[in-house]
Parts: sequence; C-alpha cells; structure tokens
Amino acid sequence: MTDNRQIVLRQRPSGTPRADDFGVVTGPMPEPSDGEFVLRNLYVSLDPGIRQRLSQVDSYVALIDIGDPLTSTTLGVVTASRDPRVSVGDHIVGFHTVSEYSLTRWAPMTRKVDLDATASPSHHLSILGMTGLTAYFGMLDIGRPKAGETVLVSTAAGAVGSVAAQIAKIKGCKVIGIAGGAEKSSRLITEFGLDAAIDYRGKDLPELTSAIRTAAPDGIDIYFDNVGGIQLDAALDCLTVGGRVAMCGLISQYNAEGPIPPLTNLFKLIAKSARIEGFAVLRYADRFPEALSDLSSWVRDGRIVFREQIEDGIESAVPAFLKLFDGRNQGKMMLDLTRR
Amino acid sequence: MTDNRQIVLRQRPSGTPRADDFGVVTGPMPEPSDGEFVLRNLYVSLDPGIRQRLSQVDSYVALIDIGDPLTSTTLGVVTASRDPRVSVGDHIVGFHTVSEYSLTRWAPMTRKVDLDATASPSHHLSILGMTGLTAYFGMLDIGRPKAGETVLVSTAAGAVGSVAAQIAKIKGCKVIGIAGGAEKSSRLITEFGLDAAIDYRGKDLPELTSAIRTAAPDGIDIYFDNVGGIQLDAALDCLTVGGRVAMCGLISQYNAEGPIPPLTNLFKLIAKSARIEGFAVLRYADRFPEALSDLSSWVRDGRIVFREQIEDGIESAVPAFLKLFDGRNQGKMMLDLTRR
Repeated sequence: MTDNRQIVLRQRPSGTPRADDFGVVTGPMPEPSDGEFVLRNLYVSLDPGIRQRLSQVDSYVALIDIGDPLTSTTLGVVTASRDPRVSVGDHIVGFHTVSEYSLTRWAPMTRKVDLDATASPSHHLSILGMTGLTAYFGMLDIGRPKAGETVLVSTAAGAVGSVAAQIAKIKGCKVIGIAGGAEKSSRLITEFGLDAAIDYRGKDLPELTSAIRTAAPDGIDIYFDNVGGIQLDAALDCLTVGGRVAMCGLISQYNAEGPIPPLTNLFKLIAKSARIEGFAVLRYADRFPEALSDLSSWVRDGRIVFREQIEDGIESAVPAFLKLFDGRNQGKMMLDLTRR
Repeated sequence: MTDNRQIVLRQRPSGTPRADDFGVVTGPMPEPSDGEFVLRNLYVSLDPGIRQRLSQVDSYVALIDIGDPLTSTTLGVVTASRDPRVSVGDHIVGFHTVSEYSLTRWAPMTRKVDLDATASPSHHLSILGMTGLTAYFGMLDIGRPKAGETVLVSTAAGAVGSVAAQIAKIKGCKVIGIAGGAEKSSRLITEFGLDAAIDYRGKDLPELTSAIRTAAPDGIDIYFDNVGGIQLDAALDCLTVGGRVAMCGLISQYNAEGPIPPLTNLFKLIAKSARIEGFAVLRYADRFPEALSDLSSWVRDGRIVFREQIEDGIESAVPAFLKLFDGRNQGKMMLDLTRR
C-alpha cells in the first residue's frame, strides 16, 4: 500500500497566489468504486486558468473548495479500473486531481493516448494537449486568418500564445507578438519567427497603442488575447474593419486586487463592425482528432516550435504554479511525476 | 434669395451637451458646383450618435470641427442639381448638414425615396431609416434569433431598441426589455408586447443582474445593446453558452466625464463561448431593399409599432437633441422643417 500525496487549497488567495495558500496532504491510495478508475499520474499540466477556480469568482469550471485538491489536466497510467472502457496500463489524459494518484471517472475531455506516437509523453499536455488545442481553435475557428492579414498575439512567448502565433504564420499572416521583457520579446522573432515584437513592460495605454500602430500601420485584423486589460484596450483601438478578437484568457484580471481597467475602446467594435469572441476549447471536442493531426504534422515539419518547462516531483507543484504569475516560466509548465 | 439657417458646433461639450455648445448661423443659400446638389430639408433625424462626433474621441465618422454645421440623416427635396443622377423635385435621404438647406454630393448612404409609398414621409428617417435598419441587421444578422430563445434589449422603449425587441418577438423569442423609469418600463409590455420589463434606474450591478436572472432564469441568448456600462456587464453575467451581444451603441459612455466602469464579467465570453459583435449599418447597404421590404410589411401588419417625436422648426434642433440625453424623448426624435 502506497501513500498518495496531493496538493490542496488551504485558503483562497488574495491577489497573486502565495505558497501558504496551498498544502501537501498525504492520504491513502484511492480504491475505485463501480465506474471509477485510478491513475498514477505521470505528468501534470499547470495552467494560469487554475487561478480562477481558487477564488469566489464565478467561473466556467467548478470552484475548488477549501481543503480540496487542485484539479488540472494530467497524463496518467491506469493502475486499477472498475470502468469496462478502461484497462490497467492504459494511458489517459483528462481533468484530474493534482496528486500522485487520481481517482476519477470517464468525462467528456477524457481520452486515451498512445505514448509511442509522440516524441515525448509530455507533448500530450502541451502541443498535443489543451495548450495546442486552445491555440488551434482560437486562431483558426475564432480568428479565421487569411493570408496577408495582420495578427497580434498577447503572451506570445507563452505556451498558448507562441503556438497561436506560429499557426497564424503558417496561414500566411504577418504576426506581431506581445511579451514581457526584452529577452522574451527577442525570442518572438529569433525562436518563433514572428515579424515584430512588442515589450509591454512599462508601457501605458497610449504607448502600447502607438507601438502596435508602428508595427501594424494598416491595423490589426485578428487579436489573439490571453490577457485582457490595457493590451486588449490597445488592440481594440487598432482593429481593422471586420476585425476579430479571439478571447482565450484574461490573465491580467485573475489576480487583480484593485479595479480592473475599463475598456475605453469598446466603441471600436461598432466603428469597425468587429467582434470579441470567447471560447472554451471543450466545445470542439469532436474535432480534436483533426486538430491533433494538423498540430503533429506541423511539429514534425518544424513549422511549430515550442518549449516545455518541466519541474520534478509533486513537491514542485506549488512553486511551479507560482512561476506562472511572475513571468519566469519559459514554455508550457508541467510536473514530471515519473521519477519516484 | 432665401437665407439658410444651420446648426453649428460652438465648443466641444464636456460631458452632457448643453445649449451653449451650439449656435444657429444664418448664411446664404448654397449653390451647387459640378457633381453637387442642394436639398431643402423636410425632416432631420436627431440621434445620440451625433454626440460622438462632437468630441475629440476618435469615432467612425469624422469629427465635427468647431464652427462647422452638425451632420445627420435628413430627408430633403432637391432644389438645384449639378449631378445628372439627381433631378429637382427628387426626394433624397442621406447624411447631410443639420440646416434648412444642405449642399451635398451623392454618397454611399444616399438614396432616393418615394414619399407616396409610406404613411408618413417621416418614416424614412425612423422605421424605414437608419433606426429601423439598425434594429433589423443588429437583431437578425448579429443576434440571429431562433424561436424559443431569450433576448434582452437595452433602451427597449427607444427608437432602435423598441424595433429590435419587436423583431425578436416576430422571430418567436421571449423578449425582456430594459428601460429607464416606471412609465417607460410599463410601455415595454403594454405598447410593444414584450414579455418582461426591467427599470434600470437606481439599480447597481448586482441588482440589475438579479433582475435579469429573475426575468430570464435560463439565461440570455441574445443581448441587443445600446448603452454599454453596467447594463452590458450584467448581461454578460447572464449569457448562455453560445450567447451573442449585438453592440449597437454605447450611449452610457458618450457623455462620460468620470471613468468608464470596467467590464467585470468579460471572462464570461470565454466561459460561455460567447461573443460581442459591433456593427455599422452601412456595411449592409446592399441589403437595405430586403430589410425595408420586411420592415414595411411588419408595420403594415401591425406587428411593429413605433413612435416618432417630431419637433417643429430648425430652432428646435438643439433643445430636441438635448432631450435625447435626459430620457424625456418618446420614440424616434426628429425635426419637421416642412412648415415654413
């Protein structure tokens, strides 16, 4: 009998999460009841979106209760099953507890994966996971890029943004990325092949708007947004007629303690017959195979490059999660639980 | 030789426009050069949207310069023409100066109208003008109502809102209107046949949200927005999955002197795979005939009722315009310049 360590919420964060908002709790190995199965988690995805489920704020996935384990996307191997669809040894990706072992049931986003089909199993949580799928459907289905259009991407050095930006490049667009700091901004061009980079740090709304206009004198046809706030406001100001904003995240607001800045350029939606459209990637579940096939081939052909930042062991979960909010992470953040 | 009185901008309004921001200037009768023609204006539409063109704020139509005449949609009869497409006696609707006579050229939104085809010539500036067309394309093309859906409309007792709400009723939707004050709210049900009414006055964001939830326990599929601000924020909070916001105006922001309230519920667009889409009605110019035919038949059949508030004479222009911002107007505001 093995113990099972899991990461629980100790108190609701006020503003940016801190280490003492969380705890590590050791419990007994779970046993499946009818319809359930148990996974030994191999990789755990850590995403900024977890932040929303920690607060009182109404969100699109259930709030995590005090004392309950955090939840995220994980890749695990089945160690016990009382679901006839799932066998011991199957590799499963789905939405599970952030813990060494997860007791779970089959759910709409649960899927079996073939570890031999990818260069690294971790890819199932990055480029072939929610990260890649979010970039794919956000850019292609909401943004609908046409060759020659100009695309702006926020958090363009990040896990989702960098993939979204490269997909727009594949579709023949001019792509401008926004990132925080000189090093990340420079990587937008050298590593991801974007056409222009904007460092948002230290820029207010007029300065950000001016930087976008300089990089895109004819305006922005598509803005792929992960952050909201003044980056969104500046992008709205630069939209072309018929412009599209694919709203994928609002990371600037997740930790907001003070007032959220207003969108002073919302009327541009009227002026430009433009739209802001949000999306939850699960809406596209029936099209995941098509997307994964495209993403795999783009990775194979070297048309998409991406980074993973893999931290070791369940005890790294909280420090790794906190890095998502201070700009120190470089690529898709996840935990490797294989070495035990 | 007749004089021509026109309404000019004296100074840029700070906040809500005041009478002394404007002046009446008498000038000589204009003479057309090649390609121009002169209209004697019969009716002048007065719209909240004029407010945006008075400020430094970048807008989708040109800013009006200090000393220049206001511009709006007018219906006039041609008194002189040096454009071969236009003959003296033709009745023309288009975007012209707010004046007794307008010197103008043919433009994308210029059209000839047949006064005998409508019950009143003023209809060409209300139900068969930009007002009706905005309601029509905003509700049908952006909102895309399906029978059984729930639709929320702001300024639902107003010129555009009341028509948009009735179009949603025609399409088989449950329609909830928001208006200011008990009298207007009650008219939403008794006069326009809506299913429920909300008086926004005195309500903060939680109270407004709660009122919407009470009227629409299953959520809002379509929000037709004329105001922005907390009404938009409350509506976002109540959107269903796949919800649509047709953004037609932001009247709450046109006169804003203090900070614009933030949209605290923007993340609902992500949570609900929902969108906010703005539109400029001119984008649909090639479909105006289809829309005018539908609107005419709905008026004839009594399925759409609407009000016009017609004030007399060019000297009423400024007082009538100011009424648009204090909630005193009842129906489409316009000037009648026929009695001289």
